[in-house]
Amino acid sequence: MEYFDPRDYDLAGRIAKLRTRHGVIETPYLFPVVDPLRQQPSLDKLGEIGFNAFITNAYLFYRRNRGKVKDIHTAFKWNKPIMTDSGGYQILVYGDVEVDNKTIVEYEKGIDVDIGVILDIPTGTMMSWEEARRAVETTYKRAVEALPLIMDSDQLWVLPVQGSPYRDLLRYSSLRAWRYPYHIHALGSPTVLLEKYDYASIVELTAIAKLYLPPHKPFHVFGVGHPMIIPFLVAVGADLFDSASYILYARDNRYMVESGTRRLEELSYLPCNCPVCSRYSVRELIEAPTEERVRLLAIHNLYMLHREIVSVKEAIKEGRLWEYLEYRSKAHPSLRRALMVVKKYYGLIEKYNPVAKGSPYAMLLVDRDSLYNPRLKRYRRESEKLINRIGFKHVVMYPALRKPYNLQEIPVKDKPVLLYHPYLGVFPPQLSNTYPYFQHEESILDDDIVYYAEKLLEDLESLKLESIEFICVEDTWSMELCRRIMGRVKDKNIVFRHVKLGKQ
Amino acid sequence: MEYFDPRDYDLAGRIAKLRTRHGVIETPYLFPVVDPLRQQPSLDKLGEIGFNAFITNAYLFYRRNRGKVKDIHTAFKWNKPIMTDSGGYQILVYGDVEVDNKTIVEYEKGIDVDIGVILDIPTGTMMSWEEARRAVETTYKRAVEALPLIMDSDQLWVLPVQGSPYRDLLRYSSLRAWRYPYHIHALGSPTVLLEKYDYASIVELTAIAKLYLPPHKPFHVFGVGHPMIIPFLVAVGADLFDSASYILYARDNRYMVESGTRRLEELSYLPCNCPVCSRYSVRELIEAPTEERVRLLAIHNLYMLHREIVSVKEAIKEGRLWEYLEYRSKAHPSLRRALMVVKKYYGLIEKYNPVAKGSPYAMLLVDRDSLYNPRLKRYRRESEKLINRIGFKHVVMYPALRKPYNLQEIPVKDKPVLLYHPYLGVFPPQLSNTYPYFQHEESILDDDIVYYAEKLLEDLESLKLESIEFICVEDTWSMELCRRIMGRVKDKNIVFRHVKLGKQ
Repeated sequence: MEYFDPRDYDLAGRIAKLRTRHGVIETPYLFPVVDPLRQQPSLDKLGEIGFNAFITNAYLFYRRNRGKVKDIHTAFKWNKPIMTDSGGYQILVYGDVEVDNKTIVEYEKGIDVDIGVILDIPTGTMMSWEEARRAVETTYKRAVEALPLIMDSDQLWVLPVQGSPYRDLLRYSSLRAWRYPYHIHALGSPTVLLEKYDYASIVELTAIAKLYLPPHKPFHVFGVGHPMIIPFLVAVGADLFDSASYILYARDNRYMVESGTRRLEELSYLPCNCPVCSRYSVRELIEAPTEERVRLLAIHNLYMLHREIVSVKEAIKEGRLWEYLEYRSKAHPSLRRALMVVKKYYGLIEKYNPVAKGSPYAMLLVDRDSLYNPRLKRYRRESEKLINRIGFKHVVMYPALRKPYNLQEIPVKDKPVLLYHPYLGVFPPQLSNTYPYFQHEESILDDDIVYYAEKLLEDLESLKLESIEFICVEDTWSMELCRRIMGRVKDKNIVFRHVKLGKQ
Repeated sequence: MEYFDPRDYDLAGRIAKLRTRHGVIETPYLFPVVDPLRQQPSLDKLGEIGFNAFITNAYLFYRRNRGKVKDIHTAFKWNKPIMTDSGGYQILVYGDVEVDNKTIVEYEKGIDVDIGVILDIPTGTMMSWEEARRAVETTYKRAVEALPLIMDSDQLWVLPVQGSPYRDLLRYSSLRAWRYPYHIHALGSPTVLLEKYDYASIVELTAIAKLYLPPHKPFHVFGVGHPMIIPFLVAVGADLFDSASYILYARDNRYMVESGTRRLEELSYLPCNCPVCSRYSVRELIEAPTEERVRLLAIHNLYMLHREIVSVKEAIKEGRLWEYLEYRSKAHPSLRRALMVVKKYYGLIEKYNPVAKGSPYAMLLVDRDSLYNPRLKRYRRESEKLINRIGFKHVVMYPALRKPYNLQEIPVKDKPVLLYHPYLGVFPPQLSNTYPYFQHEESILDDDIVYYAEKLLEDLESLKLESIEFICVEDTWSMELCRRIMGRVKDKNIVFRHVKLGKQ
């Protein structure tokens, strides 16, 4: 049985089972960072919220316990998966740590963690290219050094992919990962960018790494703290996350909302349903003793992270991850920029997007962004191929105005009929009752006719038709759409005919 | 003390205290419909979720209890506000009821409800114009008939405004409401449209009624069942809602999500944080006994409605209701169409939108939709006025590329300097550190340059300048923006100058 077993796909995202010795983690998953000394809220509470695995810091655990602890699951009284980071983040923050790679890897192995990380050198965002290159090389040297130690374990081992923000180094580092039998790859330390809300850069770095890494292995992005960015990273191929933000924010009185973060004092209401927010008011939280307030805020923040992970999984199951990104992109300008980056990596997404199949869920066609829905694009291409295969030469094209686009309603002509639609492109009326031609909801916007026209022109170019009689119906979108494509289709004989629909 | 006391305003929405004899209702508010015989979930549970007032049907209550019940609060063991509907909905569904207007009004008065409704004739959506006109007249006849009965009570009385879907009748009916001293106005029965997801029509009918009704009284929209549409109705002036959908959906195994409704069997996960969804899985809900499942689904649905109301209130407090609508409009095509209607009623919104003032909350400028943010529009207009008042004639205009738009960074010229920006329009650099010139977050999209240009042209037309030297900086949005306005500004001497920024 494979340790990593993806079952559902959408865009470059997937739902998979990651098998560890202490149980299965369903990905996409976020590991809450747990403090070995003073964890708040309790591990029981993490479990209750829905987290069945956590990450803690092997280096801190080591410094505080040395030889005393034999087994990390016993120490934490947690019989479910535990991942440990090695201290790489401490290097990033404090410059160096007191242990070497072999020591920490052997320690992680000895205390029986389920997922361990070698002692990498994070490149962070302050290093020069030369320094970053050395960090990549050293990390790989350590990866090789650790291999003999860990190959006989049945733990899962993580290889951090360093080099960002230098794209050439990240690419080099990702390609090099193919050589080593690590189980999980991880994008090193984009935390600094996240703190600046620079989500577009994180999505781009994640997409670049994913493009060059072995695609069948799980891919972890370190230190992703805010729920906002999770769906965008999943869309370009991230499977795993970890974050301490829930508690760091809470200590700073920061409360996660769908469109960002608020200081507790800024809020008049708690716009959330979680068990904390349905029991307390803003005033009650503010007046609570500090420790209690921090605990409650941390629980709320964890519920927000959990809901985002679950929402992304539901979107993947429904084949609506693109629609979900469109929606979430409007919550904040930084997410709107992130969506533009996802669009840019369309090639990556297409590689992973499963073969289009019928769906019980209506496709939501909201505005011009929906034209980039990979599912929709695939259906348009399939329909073009079909039309070219049938070999039509001279056709009449009707606007697909009202579902079902019934052949009975279309006046009989001496030429075969095709339908055209702002989102669905050109299709034979015989497809009218199939997905997504019937199963979709649409809003056709005047503001977007120019974008519909551009896409329609692309489709028309690909069709091997010789002549088209375009029917434009007065008082419908088809008038403006026709106006926009007039005189712009090459190598085809086109006439436009205005009609006024009677009863319709 | 006024019975209705608005404190916070945004768009045509507001947060207000509605005072009743059994306590204050904070609006916007949704009254859950309570069944006098077999209520599920319990009233205690409603209170726990956050609902401190409910609506029940006086006609059903009357039929079942006649003279037996003296006081509705005792009967329900609920010492908080109770509203009763009169049976109008039963007329809509069953065609007629067994009591007349006077009987039901006296009954509502006698059992001591806090908010009562006269026995109106709902026009629904099936009536001809003539029938609808008669329904409006009969409703007003009854309103007059009830007045002597209720004027000595200190209850609040609701006058339903009928006539929809006929806009002329709705307008007539709304204007007529000015004559009668009812406390609350209510838009009659758009339920049929809601079931068809025809949110654009509901928003339009609500906006029309609001335009002509006395604006200082609370405005109720009957039978709004889905959280999705609530923010859009609040934006055009609705204060109160009522709905039985939480339980009707639950009986039909329907689960509310942010972007619509799912049948429980369609879901793989529960993308929600509420106490039900954080305790149960889809499978557990499906396998629960029917009564328990219905109760749990109803509780989830109520939590969704509650969260939407709270989110809308928080958005009003933050002055971000427009941004919230932009965001929510992307959840479903029907909401995208609803947003277009809100835009159309900009005049209404502007009438109610409070005088622009500084805000601690950054303005979120996401895409072309943000150009319609009434706050932003007002700031652009104020800046134009200021520039005209100062009396500039010959200026140089720099693109506002990077906050803070610091005067020090701008090369000294012999002419006064103004800044231009895709969203913020034209403004003097001296405003750079004020709201929203500094306090905003932006994503500037290539796809939207055409819209930015149109708005900028409008601003330029209004400025009493004689000559402008436009600076366009290479490799920035300013190049394309300049290209789009070139040759299109009338009556002004304009030169465009390309520059390349060195270090910047």
